[in-house]
Amino acid sequence: MTQTIPAPTTSPRKVLLVFAHPEPRSLNGALRDVAVRELEAQGREVKVSDLYADGWKASVDRADFPALAPDARLVVAAASGEALTTGTLTPDVIAEQEKLLWADVLILQFPLWWFSMPAILKGWVERVYAYGFAYGVGEHSATRWGDRYGEGRLAGKRAMLMVTTGGWEAHYSARGVNGPIDDLLFPIHHGVLFYPGYAVLPPFVAYHTNRLDEAGFEALAEQLRERMRTLGTTAPLPFRTQNGGDYLIPSMTLRPDLGAPGATGFALHLEDGGQTAAGMTAA
Amino acid sequence: MTQTIPAPTTSPRKVLLVFAHPEPRSLNGALRDVAVRELEAQGREVKVSDLYADGWKASVDRADFPALAPDARLVVAAASGEALTTGTLTPDVIAEQEKLLWADVLILQFPLWWFSMPAILKGWVERVYAYGFAYGVGEHSATRWGDRYGEGRLAGKRAMLMVTTGGWEAHYSARGVNGPIDDLLFPIHHGVLFYPGYAVLPPFVAYHTNRLDEAGFEALAEQLRERMRTLGTTAPLPFRTQNGGDYLIPSMTLRPDLGAPGATGFALHLEDGGQTAAGMTAA
Repeated sequence: MTQTIPAPTTSPRKVLLVFAHPEPRSLNGALRDVAVRELEAQGREVKVSDLYADGWKASVDRADFPALAPDARLVVAAASGEALTTGTLTPDVIAEQEKLLWADVLILQFPLWWFSMPAILKGWVERVYAYGFAYGVGEHSATRWGDRYGEGRLAGKRAMLMVTTGGWEAHYSARGVNGPIDDLLFPIHHGVLFYPGYAVLPPFVAYHTNRLDEAGFEALAEQLRERMRTLGTTAPLPFRTQNGGDYLIPSMTLRPDLGAPGATGFALHLEDGGQTAAGMTAA
Repeated sequence: MTQTIPAPTTSPRKVLLVFAHPEPRSLNGALRDVAVRELEAQGREVKVSDLYADGWKASVDRADFPALAPDARLVVAAASGEALTTGTLTPDVIAEQEKLLWADVLILQFPLWWFSMPAILKGWVERVYAYGFAYGVGEHSATRWGDRYGEGRLAGKRAMLMVTTGGWEAHYSARGVNGPIDDLLFPIHHGVLFYPGYAVLPPFVAYHTNRLDEAGFEALAEQLRERMRTLGTTAPLPFRTQNGGDYLIPSMTLRPDLGAPGATGFALHLEDGGQTAAGMTAA
């Protein structure tokens, strides 16, 4: 059973959960309800963006920029920057940006489809992450390359993924055929969440979800409740900040003297070479 | 200038290019035209699926399965397998599947947005890759784990990505802050293309595309033409086939005696540990 732990005053009070599954009567729907109930039992404020239920428009296109001249060439970055500045983004996008600014913690919840997030959630990122809001922020100089990767409009906040996958945990292990889950999620952890400033918590990953019985679900639910209770205290993935001195400018390559011995690829961008992440995933 | 080389009889004759950019007057639009013209000059048949122009529906949802009972719980894998078997997938999805079966080569062309494909293309994958068509194919036994990763309905065909990115090439290099491009593309190369059977060619990647002048464009175009001339002869990325003996069943982990010394993560799944890919990308 859940023991409700009073949130210390330093803990996050406001949580936004972005939910990307088309069926409320799914495992994802059940896990969402578990998470929301636990957070509310702790006295936290919770908002849910239910993308499918809300009929979220998944593709970024001209319709996102109603102030763009009909004959103007669409350059998404330029158009979104202009629309942000002039307040002409569409109301659904503005509402999501306001929720991101409101929340202390962002949770993205989705089934892993083709080794990434569902299209509807990818389109949420593309539309809500306007130029000047989530990228194109800050100055470029000899000592910094914009406010990104640990800095930005969403710095000081925390984010985490809640992911389900039909595949076995072993298939996503260090030598599993699908590739390691931490590497598969890196483009989201590092490129979508750390990029605009979030501290990224280790993911909650539920494997082999097609064969889950009631006892399996309850065990999973308790792991999830524990993650919801520890949102404020779980150590984030130790991604290196871009402007903290670890990267050369303007090549933005990791300094030659840094990186755990033998570390390559994504693990280079963690201060510990990637030793932290695996232990936090659900069984 | 382009020298048109007659395609040998063993070369691929039919090419499907799936185009995912909202603006035809973009660099992507120009590169698409270069590729199509070069392929046609070689006497190849080319079809283009222009997702934005066609108003492609980006999200998989109940509307994809018109034969599903209104009160039935939506389980996407089950529903898509049933719809494939009974011929009740939607016409737009069936048309794309027929193009995939028709083509000898599949090219996915897109701007790299948030370190992955645009939502509209991700939704193309989710909707067109039905259960029984691109996954859930083949038997599971003591010696094989379904027809996937090098086997499947699309085996014997080739695929490649054509990608543009605003970022600098160095930022996507082995120690670049964004992560290595080959690792960022692995979930697509391995998980979307190799999975249903494609041999995956090294990607065509154009970096720093926001600052391209006319000479830069022409150099890029010539590199692209050369890639179009060599679609049939370029060596694919040497991904390990799942059922070829390199993986243990059912854990699907790489045999302990395999893997280049020091190789970790995605590179383990290449027979050469990842030494091939980088050389083929455009400057």
